[in-house]
Order: sequence, then structure tokens, then C-alpha cells
Amino acid sequence: MKNRIITISRQFGSGGRTIGKQVASKLGIPCYDQELLEKLAEKSGFSPEYLKEHSEYTEHGGWISTALAGRTSMGMNNQDRIWVVQRDLILELAAKGPCVIVGRCADYILRDEENVDCLNVFIHADMASRAKRIVELYGERSDSPEKRLRDKDKRRRAYVQFYTDMRWGEAENYHIALDSGALGIDKCVDIITSLY
Amino acid sequence: MKNRIITISRQFGSGGRTIGKQVASKLGIPCYDQELLEKLAEKSGFSPEYLKEHSEYTEHGGWISTALAGRTSMGMNNQDRIWVVQRDLILELAAKGPCVIVGRCADYILRDEENVDCLNVFIHADMASRAKRIVELYGERSDSPEKRLRDKDKRRRAYVQFYTDMRWGEAENYHIALDSGALGIDKCVDIITSLY
Repeated sequence: MKNRIITISRQFGSGGRTIGKQVASKLGIPCYDQELLEKLAEKSGFSPEYLKEHSEYTEHGGWISTALAGRTSMGMNNQDRIWVVQRDLILELAAKGPCVIVGRCADYILRDEENVDCLNVFIHADMASRAKRIVELYGERSDSPEKRLRDKDKRRRAYVQFYTDMRWGEAENYHIALDSGALGIDKCVDIITSLY
Repeated sequence: MKNRIITISRQFGSGGRTIGKQVASKLGIPCYDQELLEKLAEKSGFSPEYLKEHSEYTEHGGWISTALAGRTSMGMNNQDRIWVVQRDLILELAAKGPCVIVGRCADYILRDEENVDCLNVFIHADMASRAKRIVELYGERSDSPEKRLRDKDKRRRAYVQFYTDMRWGEAENYHIALDSGALGIDKCVDIITSLY
């Protein structure tokens, strides 16, 4: 029997992580997010703080800078090393049993796995809801929340494009995409749980 | 009280129209699709057959050709005239009462209407499911179903981009986007109905 996995891709500040946790808790299966980061730190040698930024976002906004940054003529940069370890880790977790995996291109990494049956979810929300949420969660910074969101979106889009060649946020890449700002977190949790 | 409207944007062959009809029937509200086309024919003077192709698709694949095709230096071409009549018709129908509107950029046309509360839906499906569906519904043609789908997608994307400047199929333009191939028509109907 195939392991049923829910992958959650999300815009920063859309509540995708909270939704993932609540879905997993309702279904009685593990949710890999913080735990994945800890395992990744263990396996890669990088610190969790460093990984938080470098396991899902490019250093800069464009994929060309990503493609070239810190690379020797034939070699891998830190981000590539993290990608390889992260990929193996996700394959390993998915083989263990049903779970929810938040972010980290898990949808792409698992797409051809024969023993895995994925429900791929995308969570997004309007700028105002996300801005409110990140200020509540992470506090004010010198940059406006809107600027922080635009920067994160840009770098995440570039990351996904570079490693997967998929267009991040394109509806047809996901089985279901939900606007958590308009529908609310609870409704999103209910719908995803009902599809499992 | 605001009129609650469900707009359904969809890929050709994804079953979006069928889903729209079933949702409307479950909710006991009208679904405007064929009826919209008939009213449009009445108001515009063009035939329903002509409108079917020209009210949602560009003549050719690129928006630049759309921008220039058949236009005099200052004038409107047929497609522009249809857009204007269609826009007024959609505003009129939305003002009448709750309903489902399939396609025709209704999400964009109604976005700033104060007396309307929209749930914007996008339905898509993988190429194989859509190919199977269009052959069942419309029969074989000299072009392969895949070629017909790619052509329709391209022309609808160009149409939406030209008149709305929105990116068709981008998840964040919709409150919910569903893969009818993976989830099935009935499940899509249930989810949308539950959100109303």
C-alpha cells in the first residue's frame, strides 16, 4: 500500500504551516517542518538558523544569481549541498509512512515515487492578511511587512524555479490551492482533511 | 445585502462547466453559461456560434496579434465589441441576484462591484483527463486532442491577459483552485457548495 502524503507549498505569511500542523493533528499523522529542519541540521552540519533561510529561499531574487553564486566551475555551493541532503531526507521520511510535509519542494521531490500517493496543496493569501500575520508572529522590522513579503516571495519563486523548473503558485501544479485570507484557516484545514 | 456570486474559470475540458451547473442546481441558483451566450447573441447581433469562439478566446495565440487584429487606428474590432457587451451583461446578471457564472472573465469584471460578494474558482485537470473528456463530449477531430487543448489554452490565456492583465491560472487570483482530474467532479462540486 502506498504512503499517503500531504505536501503543503505556501506563500510566506499565509498560515500554510499552521494549516499543515492542524491537518496532521486531525489525521493523527506527523507533520514535518521544524523537525525536518532539525534533522537537516544534523545531517548537513549547517545550523538551523542558516538552514531556515537557505533551504527554501535563494540568496538573492534572480535564478541567474542563484545559478552562479558561490559556485566553482564544476562544484556545488552551500545551497546545492542543502538541496541534496534535504531531498534525501524527504524521500526517507515519505518512505516511513503517511505524513504532512510543509514546503521544501516536497511535491516535486516525491512526484515520481512509486510508493507514495501525494495530495499537493498550495496556500496563499492577500497581501494585507499576510502582512498582519507576519507582524503578529515575527514582530515589526525596519522594512515594511509588504516589502518583507515581496522579498520572500521573489526569493522563494526563484528557489523553486531553479531546483524544480516548476512555476511556483501556478494552480495546475497543485491538486488544490486555497486562499486562507478569504476562506480562513479552519475552513482550509477542514477541506484538506476531507480530501485525505 | 450583497449578491453572492460564484465565478468559475476553467481550462478547456476540465469539466468546469459541468461543475458550475451542478453547484448551481444544488444551491438552487441560476448558472449562466449557455444562457449568457444566448443573451449575448441577442444584444450584440453576432451568432452564438461566432460568439462561442470569440467571447473567450483570441483569434490567434499571442496578445500582440490580438491587440492589432482587425483594429483601425482608433477603433474596436469585433472581439472588443463583444467584450463590452459581455461586460455589461455580466454586471446586469450579477445585479439581479445570486448565481454561478462560468468563464468570460466574470471574476475580473465583478472585482470592484460593491454589491457583489464573489467566490472565485479555477478548475483545471491534467492533459490526459481533459483529452479523454473532450473526445467524449465533442468527438475526434483531425487534430489530436492534446493539440486542440494546447491551442485553446494558449488562446484563452492570451484573451484573459489582454482584457484583464491578470495571469490566467495563477493560484493567487482565485479563492480556490481544484484539480478535477485528480479529485473528481463530484468532490469539486461538494467543496464549492460547502464554501457558499
